[in-house]
Amino acid sequence: MGRDMGPERGIKMASPTVLVLHGPNLNLLGQREPQVYGSTTLAEVDAALVARAGKLGCGLTSLQSNHEGELIDAIQGGSADGFLINPGGFGHTSVSLRDAFLAADRPMVEVHCSNTAAREEFRHRSLLTDIAVGLVMGFGADSYDLGLRALVKHLRAAH
Amino acid sequence: MGRDMGPERGIKMASPTVLVLHGPNLNLLGQREPQVYGSTTLAEVDAALVARAGKLGCGLTSLQSNHEGELIDAIQGGSADGFLINPGGFGHTSVSLRDAFLAADRPMVEVHCSNTAAREEFRHRSLLTDIAVGLVMGFGADSYDLGLRALVKHLRAAH
Amino acid sequence: MGRDMGPERGIKMASPTVLVLHGPNLNLLGQREPQVYGSTTLAEVDAALVARAGKLGCGLTSLQSNHEGELIDAIQGGSADGFLINPGGFGHTSVSLRDAFLAADRPMVEVHCSNTAAREEFRHRSLLTDIAVGLVMGFGADSYDLGLRALVKHLRAAH
Amino acid sequence: MGRDMGPERGIKMASPTVLVLHGPNLNLLGQREPQVYGSTTLAEVDAALVARAGKLGCGLTSLQSNHEGELIDAIQGGSADGFLINPGGFGHTSVSLRDAFLAADRPMVEVHCSNTAAREEFRHRSLLTDIAVGLVMGFGADSYDLGLRALVKHLRAAH
Amino acid sequence: MGRDMGPERGIKMASPTVLVLHGPNLNLLGQREPQVYGSTTLAEVDAALVARAGKLGCGLTSLQSNHEGELIDAIQGGSADGFLINPGGFGHTSVSLRDAFLAADRPMVEVHCSNTAAREEFRHRSLLTDIAVGLVMGFGADSYDLGLRALVKHLRAAH
Amino acid sequence: MGRDMGPERGIKMASPTVLVLHGPNLNLLGQREPQVYGSTTLAEVDAALVARAGKLGCGLTSLQSNHEGELIDAIQGGSADGFLINPGGFGHTSVSLRDAFLAADRPMVEVHCSNTAAREEFRHRSLLTDIAVGLVMGFGADSYDLGLRALVKHLRAAH
Amino acid sequence: MGRDMGPERGIKMASPTVLVLHGPNLNLLGQREPQVYGSTTLAEVDAALVARAGKLGCGLTSLQSNHEGELIDAIQGGSADGFLINPGGFGHTSVSLRDAFLAADRPMVEVHCSNTAAREEFRHRSLLTDIAVGLVMGFGADSYDLGLRALVKHLRAAH
Amino acid sequence: MGRDMGPERGIKMASPTVLVLHGPNLNLLGQREPQVYGSTTLAEVDAALVARAGKLGCGLTSLQSNHEGELIDAIQGGSADGFLINPGGFGHTSVSLRDAFLAADRPMVEVHCSNTAAREEFRHRSLLTDIAVGLVMGFGADSYDLGLRALVKHLRAAH
Amino acid sequence: MGRDMGPERGIKMASPTVLVLHGPNLNLLGQREPQVYGSTTLAEVDAALVARAGKLGCGLTSLQSNHEGELIDAIQGGSADGFLINPGGFGHTSVSLRDAFLAADRPMVEVHCSNTAAREEFRHRSLLTDIAVGLVMGFGADSYDLGLRALVKHLRAAH
Amino acid sequence: MGRDMGPERGIKMASPTVLVLHGPNLNLLGQREPQVYGSTTLAEVDAALVARAGKLGCGLTSLQSNHEGELIDAIQGGSADGFLINPGGFGHTSVSLRDAFLAADRPMVEVHCSNTAAREEFRHRSLLTDIAVGLVMGFGADSYDLGLRALVKHLRAAH
Amino acid sequence: MGRDMGPERGIKMASPTVLVLHGPNLNLLGQREPQVYGSTTLAEVDAALVARAGKLGCGLTSLQSNHEGELIDAIQGGSADGFLINPGGFGHTSVSLRDAFLAADRPMVEVHCSNTAAREEFRHRSLLTDIAVGLVMGFGADSYDLGLRALVKHLRAAH
Amino acid sequence: MGRDMGPERGIKMASPTVLVLHGPNLNLLGQREPQVYGSTTLAEVDAALVARAGKLGCGLTSLQSNHEGELIDAIQGGSADGFLINPGGFGHTSVSLRDAFLAADRPMVEVHCSNTAAREEFRHRSLLTDIAVGLVMGFGADSYDLGLRALVKHLRAAH
Repeated sequence: MGRDMGPERGIKMASPTVLVLHGPNLNLLGQREPQVYGSTTLAEVDAALVARAGKLGCGLTSLQSNHEGELIDAIQGGSADGFLINPGGFGHTSVSLRDAFLAADRPMVEVHCSNTAAREEFRHRSLLTDIAVGLVMGFGADSYDLGLRALVKHLRAAH
Repeated sequence: MGRDMGPERGIKMASPTVLVLHGPNLNLLGQREPQVYGSTTLAEVDAALVARAGKLGCGLTSLQSNHEGELIDAIQGGSADGFLINPGGFGHTSVSLRDAFLAADRPMVEVHCSNTAAREEFRHRSLLTDIAVGLVMGFGADSYDLGLRALVKHLRAAH
Repeated sequence: MGRDMGPERGIKMASPTVLVLHGPNLNLLGQREPQVYGSTTLAEVDAALVARAGKLGCGLTSLQSNHEGELIDAIQGGSADGFLINPGGFGHTSVSLRDAFLAADRPMVEVHCSNTAAREEFRHRSLLTDIAVGLVMGFGADSYDLGLRALVKHLRAAH
Repeated sequence: MGRDMGPERGIKMASPTVLVLHGPNLNLLGQREPQVYGSTTLAEVDAALVARAGKLGCGLTSLQSNHEGELIDAIQGGSADGFLINPGGFGHTSVSLRDAFLAADRPMVEVHCSNTAAREEFRHRSLLTDIAVGLVMGFGADSYDLGLRALVKHLRAAH
Repeated sequence: MGRDMGPERGIKMASPTVLVLHGPNLNLLGQREPQVYGSTTLAEVDAALVARAGKLGCGLTSLQSNHEGELIDAIQGGSADGFLINPGGFGHTSVSLRDAFLAADRPMVEVHCSNTAAREEFRHRSLLTDIAVGLVMGFGADSYDLGLRALVKHLRAAH
Repeated sequence: MGRDMGPERGIKMASPTVLVLHGPNLNLLGQREPQVYGSTTLAEVDAALVARAGKLGCGLTSLQSNHEGELIDAIQGGSADGFLINPGGFGHTSVSLRDAFLAADRPMVEVHCSNTAAREEFRHRSLLTDIAVGLVMGFGADSYDLGLRALVKHLRAAH
Repeated sequence: MGRDMGPERGIKMASPTVLVLHGPNLNLLGQREPQVYGSTTLAEVDAALVARAGKLGCGLTSLQSNHEGELIDAIQGGSADGFLINPGGFGHTSVSLRDAFLAADRPMVEVHCSNTAAREEFRHRSLLTDIAVGLVMGFGADSYDLGLRALVKHLRAAH
Repeated sequence: MGRDMGPERGIKMASPTVLVLHGPNLNLLGQREPQVYGSTTLAEVDAALVARAGKLGCGLTSLQSNHEGELIDAIQGGSADGFLINPGGFGHTSVSLRDAFLAADRPMVEVHCSNTAAREEFRHRSLLTDIAVGLVMGFGADSYDLGLRALVKHLRAAH
Repeated sequence: MGRDMGPERGIKMASPTVLVLHGPNLNLLGQREPQVYGSTTLAEVDAALVARAGKLGCGLTSLQSNHEGELIDAIQGGSADGFLINPGGFGHTSVSLRDAFLAADRPMVEVHCSNTAAREEFRHRSLLTDIAVGLVMGFGADSYDLGLRALVKHLRAAH
Repeated sequence: MGRDMGPERGIKMASPTVLVLHGPNLNLLGQREPQVYGSTTLAEVDAALVARAGKLGCGLTSLQSNHEGELIDAIQGGSADGFLINPGGFGHTSVSLRDAFLAADRPMVEVHCSNTAAREEFRHRSLLTDIAVGLVMGFGADSYDLGLRALVKHLRAAH
Repeated sequence: MGRDMGPERGIKMASPTVLVLHGPNLNLLGQREPQVYGSTTLAEVDAALVARAGKLGCGLTSLQSNHEGELIDAIQGGSADGFLINPGGFGHTSVSLRDAFLAADRPMVEVHCSNTAAREEFRHRSLLTDIAVGLVMGFGADSYDLGLRALVKHLRAAH
Repeated sequence: MGRDMGPERGIKMASPTVLVLHGPNLNLLGQREPQVYGSTTLAEVDAALVARAGKLGCGLTSLQSNHEGELIDAIQGGSADGFLINPGGFGHTSVSLRDAFLAADRPMVEVHCSNTAAREEFRHRSLLTDIAVGLVMGFGADSYDLGLRALVKHLRAAH
């Protein structure tokens, strides 16, 4: 399993809270290039995640931004127990986003709607994956749902 | 989404069958290096997958082998509608396994228990990911469960 | 010709509108390093572009920002038929800006005042050029003028 | 701006002469692969350049050759004040063509009909761009017209 | 099979004509370095190819040149239905020769007398192979004979 | 010509025997991805090779296996005078197959149905070509036929 | 010594002013990962720098931001005689920040609390160091103090 | 010393057992390419190792296989206290063999008859050496004898 | 902070001694290439360091040598509590110097008069930096002074 | 010493003849870029070489061409005992020129007026040097004179 | 087996003499970093080698130096029949040491106490291994003992 | 011409003095590996150089050393007007030797007896050539003679 940032060993979290972060251009999800990213909109994704969080018994808030600094601010400011992020283009270029997660020191799961391994060469490197708990990619909007399940299960497990 | 191999557009599969493939050394799952791969055994993984398949209403068989040729034989011979594979070390080295999936031309999902991006450099390249529907990695034995859900949902969706 | 994003084949645009984007540090154009970038100020560049747009019979608005996110917001929000961009340093580093143009799916022309091929090694790679209609560089402020002519002609041509 | 080869500072050229050079296979322009290079023929390109030169008040002659040596001979022998070149395949391989321009020590503008950044990897390197005044590419035959305007303006400017 | 340039699908050619091209230094075939290239002379190669063409019922002409431009001219000017080329040293360096074949848009087969994979590193890259129908190398002068058979069979096959 | 493994100089073989080896996934030849590999089946390939061997007056046996070890066993155990191999995916990855041929020290010809130079980057490297007599690739099932002719001619020639 | 941007030769600055810039995540200094960055907080760093500036007889203001654009704005807008920057993650990725310093054309000193040479490979490249007067790294919060001393001495020296 | 897999610190093994593994093509040892590998046969090697083991007071069994899977099976199934392996070609390509040793977590010594550093470039990388106790290579069949002495001494030492 | 070699945690050193090492050609400091290295001579540097050491209350001796072995001998033989080194050209090439510091296991600080990041490519790699406490470079002879302050502060801090 | 192509061992040449070849743009020697190539013209170089040849008692003819093919023709056609070549830009790009010398199999000496190691990166590789007897470069027109002396001495020595 | 430098074929050496060379920092063996190099001192190593030499019936002298030049002098001056060297850091950087062994033209065996393949990347390349008879590494001080046995056996064998 | 270090323009040296430096292992010249380095001894080389210097009217002293530091000391200490160096193995590895020449700032000519371009890959890079006046290599001991002539001519020329 990936680098484990977070709660002390032996501490289980009954009702963890999750901060969902959507990187640049994801506000257009479902509207553009559906052959690449699928046809579900970001609002639908967020609604589905809230519903899933309810079933899983955890809290969930989300933020989309085209501004790297806003995402970093949110990671620093959040009191969330864990992070679910679709970093979009920032995943390939932002050392600062990585540093924000390293500083936050709480579990993070990375998701992508598309299969980045089947796209341009410069999308094959992620600066986040090796510090994530794990990665889910290629299943369109379902990647978020699977990622959330995995993250909550991870948070609830004793470390 | 990843390369889509398989069923014609507009055809939904009510009860798809899935072939689960476990690559080399995965017979030792749960017994060795649990800090890397988790403590669930391969028998427990298979039992959980069968249970999940039952709930999802699909058929499932599985095979573990340390022999590349046996895995290729199974991919060629199977009548499964889709594949779930944890390729182990073969994912980094076997062009022939990739060719077998290309020939099979049916959806495949790749899973890893560990987060390969956080391990040795030579584990960062996979010869399977860009032809998979998607990838789930880093969640221990849960990677299989999440991958199966994603695969079955993909098979059931109209393409 | 480059990747053609945009209007349907056979549709000609009589009075297209163009959004001109100036990346980071270009607000200093003409004031600093004139031996590299020339001595025309950004205000003069914009005035000349508005004048040229008038002659060409098209609408034109422009934006300069040192913030990657603001440029992405503008690309997403704009109703422009085409984009003329001098990306400055972002051209070499921003996958997210590229993604914004891919999502916008309308013709874009890239311009540079300086000849980037004659500068530092890391300025030789652009993440935008291969998805642009074309590129004009090395002619100081004239690069903008030539780029605008080319863009408008492209927008007016039947595709 | 690019490397400035040429006329002394403070000397303006009223009626500069330009030598247009077309590299290998460009005699087929407009006849083959129009989806890559456009449908204008080389004769039409040359006619349009002569017309433009007339409007701009400069002299213009042109040469197409599939032989690297003939292009070098022309660069050496010419009395032109500046060069406009579409080097075709030679731009990626010919150190000798580069050396000829270095020896000629007069302004040169490079143009390409296609967007070479969107083509094969080996077309991304040009041995001419860093010694050119500037580059125009991706606009089909219009690349020549824009390049000629830029070159003549450059020749007329006081250096 | 390789990139298929050429005749329309469903059209069979009863008596195709073939242009055989020999690149630089191949006029010395059989006279120099026989341990590398074999002892058959170019005249003998051409005679054998004409004889084979007669048996196969196709037309054949050939050209040797040490000048890149002459080979490009011949490719452009020829009315041949297909090309058989031993590019010699040009195969490793000439983007322009590649462009000439791309423009010609007719089937081409590449042959080498020596096994270039067993020679210097810089001979391992060919700029022609990926646009050829196929490649035959390593069998001395027999490479030509095998290549001609393959080309004619390809031309006669319905595409 | 390539590395010459085999019979003593001056010894001609009247009736050489050939072992044909088909690597992984080639049992599916003609059934899958015919746009890449052609539509001839492996049984048809073998039948055609036996027929050709009869005309050429040589013996021929063949083996297909998805197991690297079985191919190595066959190379070691065979009494064949020469080898014709389509290594499939093993050609790009198997040092051990290479070692088996080096140990066998008898002429080997490598064939591929597809033009591997026009496919994925990792298919451009072969671990067998530099120790083969020669290579034929890109002509579909004809590659086998041409390769057999070349191998038998080579075996019959005085070395 | 590094690239010297700035005041004319022979001009000494009696009371120079310095702008201290802290890049992304440095607002968390002293709170997170103290084993990497030390336990001094940013407020303490700034207070110590103000105190040191007083002793050195120079003016000093500081700014921390997680937003690349804000840092660029500050560099452009500032009237400071020199810059002291800990660029955090931006040092490895931001061409635009580099361009802002090139445009500002005043001396800049780069500092890092950690020894970046002993961390991940992607932290070994800095886009700022070669245009800095000098670099101090690895001494925790003391890096700032040493950097300020060096900068002020440099500003006061005749150039 | 290399990565130490194995027995607890402070535990000495009086009569350790060793599993000797010979990779692909080593069944031909002494028969083929004696100038590279020496003239001792595998049977002679095994006999000498059994004799040496007797003198050293340890148990020893051996296995040769051309099948990667069989070697992995043996490593998993064995109850040996340590491994002595000449991996042949698998040492350069098999991540799975490496994984089997990592899972076995007992001391392993790697030997080669030839000096791989003096052979082809692709033989310079071993996927096993960095997890071995140590390496002996270049001494023909003596490499085995020296490796066994070193392994047994290592097993007997208190860790 | 960098790799911490040295004194036990919790032990403060009241009067540490420092060995200053100057690598090859530094005996010429101030005499040659002052535009690169500054105009202070080595004698002046040493005098200033002795003076500074007096103020800081620590002992200091120094050695310059053009002989790699003499520097290694000095590191081994010294009883200094810490090292200050300007390695000159040896920093880019000497694994043995690095090994000597690793063996010495006491804090070392690396300094350079010039900004090596702004010089030739081969000066960008240092074999010492990642095992140093920290690095100071680019400030001419002041780099030594800053480095000594940093080293002494580090030695005095409780570890 | 370099690869020795040429006269039989033990045969001394009393009056060898030398063919001097000047590559592209060398007809401009002395007229352009004298700071790089010196101020001696090609005519003066040839005159000096003829004079030197007279003193050395050997015959000498020379050829300058901007056409790669003409140089290859000359190498093939010449009856010279040895070659002195300044390949200009062709030295970095022409595999065919190399092949011509390999075929000629007579001693060749390479000269350059400039020191190519001190120029652009792409001038550092020569495709001729490793098959030359030796190389003289950096001494302006004197490089030719020294190269001729060396060549004639080599031709006269018994091999 | 590796490159064989040395005694004539068929000549057996009854009582060969061996020169043992210890590179830089090895005088500290057993005192520093015992977890890497083991706890045996250099004096103990030398004593054990002398004892072993006595049993093997050969002469042995040894030299340790931190000075590359002294080791080269020793190789040149020695009358030893073979060399046993632990080059320490010089093995990765010294072309001159390699040249000394090439000139000496007598068998050399390379040993390392640590397993260099498990250490820093720059320790993976040795400039000596490919010209050594063989290599022993990873067994602490035992590496010397095994290397001496192998060297003496090699010297005694008829070549 | 190469980087010109040295005497002021317009100053001619009537009787320059030259220091000849021979790097490691060159004391063995003529004794070992004559097929690579020729059969002239170092004493003979020096005697010939002294004789040539007499004819040329310049002073000459020489030094051979296997110690990098001694060569650096000599360069620093010498009052010679120019240097002639055969750096042996140090040319490929010694940044410090390069730095000594940069500091000496007097013309240097590099010579090699062998043609290093035809030897191992690591001998192709020289750290001295780009700062030399020029290079002569491949002519055995004659390389020295030619290099001395070129150096003296360069020293006597007005710069």
